[in-house]
Amino acid sequence: MAQRIALDAMGGDHAPGEIIRGAIRAAEQDSDLEITLVGDQKQIEEELQKAGSGASFEIIHTDSWVEMDEDPKVGVKEKTDASINICSRLVNDGKVDALVSAGNTGATILSAAKNIPVIEGIERTALATVYPTAKFNHNRRGFALMLDVGATLKCTAKQLVHFAFMGNFYVADILGVEQPRIGLLNIGEEETKGGDVLKQTYQLLRNTPELNFIGNIEGKDIPKGEADVVVTEGFMGNVVLKMMEGVADVVKQTGKYAFKKKFAWKIGLALLAPGIKKLKRRTDYTEYGGAPILGFRKLAIKAHGRSNAKAIANAIHVAANSSKQNICAKIEDAIGDFNQRHALDFAEV
Amino acid sequence: MAQRIALDAMGGDHAPGEIIRGAIRAAEQDSDLEITLVGDQKQIEEELQKAGSGASFEIIHTDSWVEMDEDPKVGVKEKTDASINICSRLVNDGKVDALVSAGNTGATILSAAKNIPVIEGIERTALATVYPTAKFNHNRRGFALMLDVGATLKCTAKQLVHFAFMGNFYVADILGVEQPRIGLLNIGEEETKGGDVLKQTYQLLRNTPELNFIGNIEGKDIPKGEADVVVTEGFMGNVVLKMMEGVADVVKQTGKYAFKKKFAWKIGLALLAPGIKKLKRRTDYTEYGGAPILGFRKLAIKAHGRSNAKAIANAIHVAANSSKQNICAKIEDAIGDFNQRHALDFAEV
Repeated sequence: MAQRIALDAMGGDHAPGEIIRGAIRAAEQDSDLEITLVGDQKQIEEELQKAGSGASFEIIHTDSWVEMDEDPKVGVKEKTDASINICSRLVNDGKVDALVSAGNTGATILSAAKNIPVIEGIERTALATVYPTAKFNHNRRGFALMLDVGATLKCTAKQLVHFAFMGNFYVADILGVEQPRIGLLNIGEEETKGGDVLKQTYQLLRNTPELNFIGNIEGKDIPKGEADVVVTEGFMGNVVLKMMEGVADVVKQTGKYAFKKKFAWKIGLALLAPGIKKLKRRTDYTEYGGAPILGFRKLAIKAHGRSNAKAIANAIHVAANSSKQNICAKIEDAIGDFNQRHALDFAEV
Repeated sequence: MAQRIALDAMGGDHAPGEIIRGAIRAAEQDSDLEITLVGDQKQIEEELQKAGSGASFEIIHTDSWVEMDEDPKVGVKEKTDASINICSRLVNDGKVDALVSAGNTGATILSAAKNIPVIEGIERTALATVYPTAKFNHNRRGFALMLDVGATLKCTAKQLVHFAFMGNFYVADILGVEQPRIGLLNIGEEETKGGDVLKQTYQLLRNTPELNFIGNIEGKDIPKGEADVVVTEGFMGNVVLKMMEGVADVVKQTGKYAFKKKFAWKIGLALLAPGIKKLKRRTDYTEYGGAPILGFRKLAIKAHGRSNAKAIANAIHVAANSSKQNICAKIEDAIGDFNQRHALDFAEV
């Protein structure tokens, strides 16, 4: 069965050019895809012509979209026919299986929240991010997933366990990790660490045999890849994610500085180039296919704002694959079971 | 006037050897220091003899100390004459001006809390850490201070502003940064970001002309050094700090891996060695003199558990310097003024 993806052609720093080229790339790599391009028809057709590809797309025209730096609340609410809103309505109407956008992150989350129903039993959605880790130790794949990184700033224990389930299925099915190791981000390994919410989350996770819970993990374990799924509330996850980006920027700048500074350093860097290239490839966000927004009945993939064609193509493949693997249905079933088992614990008194 | 420092001779991964050698080093560098060594007299004297230095120290004997991996609450409470407890009582009795310990972090904080009065008007103390930053942009010094990193996990707005004052004076007087730029760690720059506590903190800081408040900073700004003082609650600060340590470990491991892997990479790294050495020196915790515990009437410095003699000597110099600069008194005055101005805002209703 073909996988149907709605693509926000107007979202992203390099929209619509790189977005359209990403769609073409994805379509050429997988002929089973049906991609709907949502955006300014004239611009889209120009880009398609420029690329000169034989791939065919459905185009839905709109002359409205949320800008990258626009207030997402205002944009999503007032621009009813913004490209991202059309995409999420297509998902809700069952006309596509998933959506992909490299546009305004807040707008993508809000538009999905407005138009796509949340999985029954889930109270909050999560923005998840795949990030590169050291490959030396336990982590066989060299990457891991962290959630939430900004959709839900404060969480209850129940919500955090739901995030663990979401991350578990995503990492198992999309990243291909068997029995993903689930870690709860805390300030120490002991189960008594952290506030009440974290202590309760620890106990709930420990008593959830479907999940491979490895206990609390600390900040140092994030880059080391001690867990395949890092569970945390959105405020923490957002700061940690941006800090990783900051560290990567500093490393890059340091390399550039060294390259310019001395001839010997230039030679040294040249000799290390194959290794650096390998490392760069592994830490390159374009490889990972974007950040899934989990908790909705259908998957929305938020690709990085800086996405190029390759990153968009990967995001489309991930969206198609998630739909093929029925990840949202698996999450729904598992969380339904969990909630039922804990119906009394979570009853509103 | 001589600065009098109590040194926990039994605390640290390399105690008492490196601790004693650190004391000797500090005493030889600054003859104005009066260092009291607290610990097992026999071991201390053996180490002094081994080092064969002419420096003289007061020794206070105890055969009790809190182990590095011991539960700090139990250790501090039950071992009344643990070396760290004697050190903090010496501070409280006015027999020394400050204490230094490379031992169990929790025990150092708890022992100080038990024995040293908190500055009037301060509700919570903070553990602060100096960390290296990129030097490229605004940060002239290549390091910054973050607090709290684990003493107070959850904070009110008032407490966060108090932390800003503490960090301000420490960075100004000890790190020599004029008008330190104070940043509030948040998930976005806008003043409306974060929860109620952060929004209120933002407003309070903006209306505190004594502080050079630069607004909210994000995770990416931490390694970039956009602020000289990063204000955050202890839970977040602890995760961020440990994550920095984890990233440093991964970088080190990657370098080792590259060195072993290929002859060309070995040569490349050799050519880069002077730069790497410089970078290492700047990211070396032994240079920074330990983490101050701020908010008490007198300063306690927690040196890194792995401290060698050099790190201990630096921590002793920092402790002496803080006392000479009257940092605690400056914090007390500034916070007194601030609390008075906001007496009505903070009144318990």
